[in-house]
Amino acid sequence: MGDFDCHALHGDALRASGEPIALPPNTNLTKFKAFISRVTSVVDETNVQIILSHDDIAQEEYTDPSRAHDMFHILDKTHFISSAVVAPKNVVDVQDIIKLANEFEIPVWPFSKGRNIGYGGTAPRVRGSLGIDLGKNMNRVLKVDPQSAYALLEPGVSYFDLHEYLVTHNLRDQVWADVPDVGGGSVIGNALERGTGYTPYGEHWMMHCGLEVVLPDGSLLRTGMGALPNPKADKSIPPHEQEPDESWQIFDCSLGPHSAGIFSQSSLGIVVKMGIWLMPNPGGYQAYMVTFPRDNDLNQIVEILRPLRIFGVIQNTPKLDNVLVTAAVQGHRTEYTNSDMPLTDHQLDEVAKKLSIGRWNLYGAMYGPPIIRDALWSIIKASFSKIPGAKFYFPEDRPNDIVLQTRSNTMQGIPSTTELGLLSWLPNGGHLFFSPIAKVTGPDAKAQYGLTRRLSEEYGFDFIGVFIIGAREMHHIVCILFDRKDPDASRRAHELIQVLIAEAADRGWGEYRTHLALMDQIAETYNFNENAQMKLNEKLKNTLDPKGILCPGKNGIWPANYLRRAEPIRQIRTSHGTVGTWQQQQKVGFCPTLEQ
Amino acid sequence: MGDFDCHALHGDALRASGEPIALPPNTNLTKFKAFISRVTSVVDETNVQIILSHDDIAQEEYTDPSRAHDMFHILDKTHFISSAVVAPKNVVDVQDIIKLANEFEIPVWPFSKGRNIGYGGTAPRVRGSLGIDLGKNMNRVLKVDPQSAYALLEPGVSYFDLHEYLVTHNLRDQVWADVPDVGGGSVIGNALERGTGYTPYGEHWMMHCGLEVVLPDGSLLRTGMGALPNPKADKSIPPHEQEPDESWQIFDCSLGPHSAGIFSQSSLGIVVKMGIWLMPNPGGYQAYMVTFPRDNDLNQIVEILRPLRIFGVIQNTPKLDNVLVTAAVQGHRTEYTNSDMPLTDHQLDEVAKKLSIGRWNLYGAMYGPPIIRDALWSIIKASFSKIPGAKFYFPEDRPNDIVLQTRSNTMQGIPSTTELGLLSWLPNGGHLFFSPIAKVTGPDAKAQYGLTRRLSEEYGFDFIGVFIIGAREMHHIVCILFDRKDPDASRRAHELIQVLIAEAADRGWGEYRTHLALMDQIAETYNFNENAQMKLNEKLKNTLDPKGILCPGKNGIWPANYLRRAEPIRQIRTSHGTVGTWQQQQKVGFCPTLEQ
Repeated sequence: MGDFDCHALHGDALRASGEPIALPPNTNLTKFKAFISRVTSVVDETNVQIILSHDDIAQEEYTDPSRAHDMFHILDKTHFISSAVVAPKNVVDVQDIIKLANEFEIPVWPFSKGRNIGYGGTAPRVRGSLGIDLGKNMNRVLKVDPQSAYALLEPGVSYFDLHEYLVTHNLRDQVWADVPDVGGGSVIGNALERGTGYTPYGEHWMMHCGLEVVLPDGSLLRTGMGALPNPKADKSIPPHEQEPDESWQIFDCSLGPHSAGIFSQSSLGIVVKMGIWLMPNPGGYQAYMVTFPRDNDLNQIVEILRPLRIFGVIQNTPKLDNVLVTAAVQGHRTEYTNSDMPLTDHQLDEVAKKLSIGRWNLYGAMYGPPIIRDALWSIIKASFSKIPGAKFYFPEDRPNDIVLQTRSNTMQGIPSTTELGLLSWLPNGGHLFFSPIAKVTGPDAKAQYGLTRRLSEEYGFDFIGVFIIGAREMHHIVCILFDRKDPDASRRAHELIQVLIAEAADRGWGEYRTHLALMDQIAETYNFNENAQMKLNEKLKNTLDPKGILCPGKNGIWPANYLRRAEPIRQIRTSHGTVGTWQQQQKVGFCPTLEQ
Repeated sequence: MGDFDCHALHGDALRASGEPIALPPNTNLTKFKAFISRVTSVVDETNVQIILSHDDIAQEEYTDPSRAHDMFHILDKTHFISSAVVAPKNVVDVQDIIKLANEFEIPVWPFSKGRNIGYGGTAPRVRGSLGIDLGKNMNRVLKVDPQSAYALLEPGVSYFDLHEYLVTHNLRDQVWADVPDVGGGSVIGNALERGTGYTPYGEHWMMHCGLEVVLPDGSLLRTGMGALPNPKADKSIPPHEQEPDESWQIFDCSLGPHSAGIFSQSSLGIVVKMGIWLMPNPGGYQAYMVTFPRDNDLNQIVEILRPLRIFGVIQNTPKLDNVLVTAAVQGHRTEYTNSDMPLTDHQLDEVAKKLSIGRWNLYGAMYGPPIIRDALWSIIKASFSKIPGAKFYFPEDRPNDIVLQTRSNTMQGIPSTTELGLLSWLPNGGHLFFSPIAKVTGPDAKAQYGLTRRLSEEYGFDFIGVFIIGAREMHHIVCILFDRKDPDASRRAHELIQVLIAEAADRGWGEYRTHLALMDQIAETYNFNENAQMKLNEKLKNTLDPKGILCPGKNGIWPANYLRRAEPIRQIRTSHGTVGTWQQQQKVGFCPTLEQ
């Protein structure tokens, strides 16, 4: 049945089941079974799965239902894996499960749709954690208010679901949902991990408004105006079912400290409801693509982009793709080369020529009635025309270009899975994202591109990267594509990203998000003033989660009951030569030393 | 020398000085003097003032330099007052003062420019606290980056200062600062209290990027990308002087929980540096005013406003003023009546007629080149023309209208103090703001206006209110103007606002910000699920500030060393009759019971 045997436990099956692939820390089989038995009594047997064996890894699929592992693992396939997965039916179940986790001192790892691909999928940081699948049963669109343009959602609502809701209810002429590259993920999960989309509402975390959170002690909080009881609410029902005040989704704060932020990229609470602002239908739309012929056009492209974006002439969050992004989404590497060596500049020019694209390709959109779009387009076109050979396209000019056609949908809030095509650039394509923040200047873009391409190629990989241009910065997403069945490729990918992180920190570049395997390293690059930010993180963690049961180790934050230990020093080669490891540079690594 | 005698302590003066007007809780004169002596050794004598006496209150002025009291007090003038005020010279001084406050267990109350008028000025919640005047010495514009459009500031930088900096450095053709109604306040202070301005960058807290914070234990934190050390920084100098990474002001998060929010409206840290995004010069600007003749036009105005604002046709944060706001800024009440009774509808019509304004007056602006502005104006004008009698003006149509002329400046980032004219509506004008959040619908606006006007008039006050229209909600600011020399007026103002808070909560309306005297009552309206939000606030407070020295009681959050005590029940009349007090409704009041 695919990657892992995931047995729904029915009656005797629970007792009959064998040992899980991984036990939680400090937990023997007897204790684990007692725990699972109590968890099962909360949610019923159909909502508990124990991960029993790990044969047949070759058949793992993106859509594997077990949702307890990283389908694009760079370490051993069972390095990051849950012992079991539970799917709560509702908020009270989440609260009960958290209370049990505290009682048994067993770590839990919640996920929504499990589509955190490139960053670890559904796998937990601590092996043997209990996965909490919020997506299976808690997947309602609770409300869409087209007047005030917001939605209130449960974690299991994907971008497809939300879009479908708008279509089914004939609301698309009033409001759009912003969607990221791939539509299968959770709207809540993506916002919490501070992901982006590509309309003017592309900063998903900024566009959230109002959270309902189960805290690590099992208590329930509503942030911001959610703390104001709705006078009409029935106080005799559980709090999570009580009708929220109407201001919860229109104003994100209440009185006093604004705490929503500490629940993003967080191990401080489980978000079980979220409000998100929807984009008003702008009354007109036009996507465009601009191609730039030369690799070294990058400097000038970004210098032109910055003022256009800051001034709002470019209204959305556009993408500037390197040639191979566009190529990989729509084809296989073997179409261009049989060599294992990274494509050369000459070959990259050939790719561009074959696809009638540039070495860099900008995808953007204009919103509003024709009079507005025409004005914007005249400025955008004139600006980029300064770059010799820049070409301008609308989707109708390239009817067979699946990338442009897909992006034209994405930038108006219509989700797809087309961009997953990127993975088939290589056979058995796995990927890992290196995601540093970049200043929107030509020199910064050039420097980040130069470093990341050079190192990618040194480690035997093609450079596949994109700049996503935000309000004041770029998310530079470097996609390290590797063949999952090639252990050497996994090893090289892992080494490459470690070197990239170290080299980036040397230059003052930090990552906004990362894979489980890199969390400690990146967390330790944020070490201003003797790790002041981490000290705050740890203080909050130990206060709100004294038993350290919620996502221990997530983003490098380890609870007090996990001891620090220096990992064995590993030599990492950087472009300056061998410079030792990040542990050396950052004094000491964090890692769990609980006895098993 | 005005309200309070504020003696800078020189040499023997410290020893010779008498008892301060108020001692901190649990502190006798000997301990206080020992504390002040230590504080003085940190900052030198010219930066310490003890508040010695309280004669001559009649001469208090808005610009009173003592900055330790509420110039618009509604309780006794010495109810909320500091024992002394210290002005740190730099960040290390702030850290040292906080450490001394912990050592002596004496509460501190930082302020920036001290212009939190209508909400308590510079006065502390706990009588006898040590005021920390961040504005006097820490007032540098540390950086303006016109390319990426941001500034990095110290707390003492006012809107006037920032604007002046842009003018002096010829940067206004590149970037503007968003400014609130009155330009004398601190840019940092206003953003932290989540105040608003009136350009497209009007949500000041949303536009901040990067904080440097002194935590209650005296340690120093940089939020977000500030945690990434600048590789070029000189590590041998104090952290606060180390050159920050360039990404600090362009991206607000790092990896892991985003903690900036907990330092807004907060008693969890003292913000000593802040980045703020500047608005790019839009390349064209046009302010406008629309007047609406009838009081009951409100419903239709707001129904028209909502989609225009959400769709971005109205690009900025416009203001919808009730007739008396516009009248009060430019005149005195005695010009219209000699009666103490609130103005009648007939009289309000007369006011509107005399000033050629409406019963409601909308002030907005358009940004961009003529082609954009023309397109927007055609929609705005057509939309509001549906309201019979609506009139449209540009500033050049009303050259002598100081309100429109001022707003035309404000909405393009040019600060002023004109709006303080509001206070001279009454003799010895004091004011108190009641600031509920409103849904942007006609019925909600009508209901809030109806309630607040009726109750204002019941308590003998004119209704003076404005709706500030945000992205999804309105800040409804009701300005309770009273004669500070009339004890009965102060009493009525205080009673009125208590009733307003209770009545608003009954309807699901909460306030975004409030005066010291009302913090407990409002905090307790945010009581969803047995005060879950307050429980989190208290947990964070007691973790980060175990001795409870930083702003105890701010926004209703009391540290553990302040015991809860039910205050004497006071009868509050509401429109439903006498319904008891908010303490009764909310179980128990919080108030300090430390022995003095």
